[in-house]
Amino acid sequence: MRVLGVDPGLTRCGLGVVDGRPGRAAMVAVGVVRTPGDADPGERLVYLESELDRWLSRFAPDVVAVERVFADVNVQTVISTAHASAIALLTATKRGIPVHFHTPTEVKAAVTGSGRSEKAQVTMMVTRILGLDSAPRPADAADALALALCHLWRGQAQTRLTQLAGQGQR
Amino acid sequence: MRVLGVDPGLTRCGLGVVDGRPGRAAMVAVGVVRTPGDADPGERLVYLESELDRWLSRFAPDVVAVERVFADVNVQTVISTAHASAIALLTATKRGIPVHFHTPTEVKAAVTGSGRSEKAQVTMMVTRILGLDSAPRPADAADALALALCHLWRGQAQTRLTQLAGQGQR
Repeated sequence: MRVLGVDPGLTRCGLGVVDGRPGRAAMVAVGVVRTPGDADPGERLVYLESELDRWLSRFAPDVVAVERVFADVNVQTVISTAHASAIALLTATKRGIPVHFHTPTEVKAAVTGSGRSEKAQVTMMVTRILGLDSAPRPADAADALALALCHLWRGQAQTRLTQLAGQGQR
Repeated sequence: MRVLGVDPGLTRCGLGVVDGRPGRAAMVAVGVVRTPGDADPGERLVYLESELDRWLSRFAPDVVAVERVFADVNVQTVISTAHASAIALLTATKRGIPVHFHTPTEVKAAVTGSGRSEKAQVTMMVTRILGLDSAPRPADAADALALALCHLWRGQAQTRLTQLAGQGQR
């Protein structure tokens, strides 16, 4: 299964593609879409949409995993993050690709074992799990890969539970 | 000038088109786009985009006025409202139509004279100003018309101030 992880944002939107097979995950691509803070808000969304569309077309993921937006001290940050996640949701849905949301706590727990880990620990574990030579930079890129890994593992665990439940019923 | 007012929301998105000339404003169209709360979140955005696009195509507004999203008691409401406003911003920008945001306080002040008016008062004034036989229903439809009126009047006041400033400089 191929997952595109999206760490939504307008200033920086992290994108990471991971291929997952049982017991193995491999990075396919990682990057960041940036739009300048002083650009027209509508133009920022149009550019983000075109870049996301390019990634979906080029890497053809089976599923898109997006970080679920939460309350923040800064309301404006919540709103611009929600704007970016809306574009990801719209673009993937129009291509018929399912979108799943994961909270920051779920993502941290998936790759480090604890939902309260620091950002640096998430980056370190992503680098180790994917066998990368160096840590993905900036943090948004590492977060996007962590989201993809989180989705792979939570998805696999969910499938396993469903299978076990099916066996129990027999 | 023709303004499309958008009261963003996923469950109900109010849309109102108003034509404005000096000393006169006339309603062209009003409506609400609804998507069911139990529908797929991505499909809700795709449907909203297609309906907004249909309105932009049919009424060809010169400008789109969208309510600025603010903090709310319910974080989920803020996020779904931000998702809807992102779709409005994206769709209009792709057609080259400028988008302006106005706060609820600015809208209330524009049509009732006070930024702290009740919703019922806003609806009453919208009905009176546009010379409608009955109040637009639901409230989201009236709010969309109020947004369009707010933009017309704030825009006109802004233009007048700029003209006065220009005269002062001569």
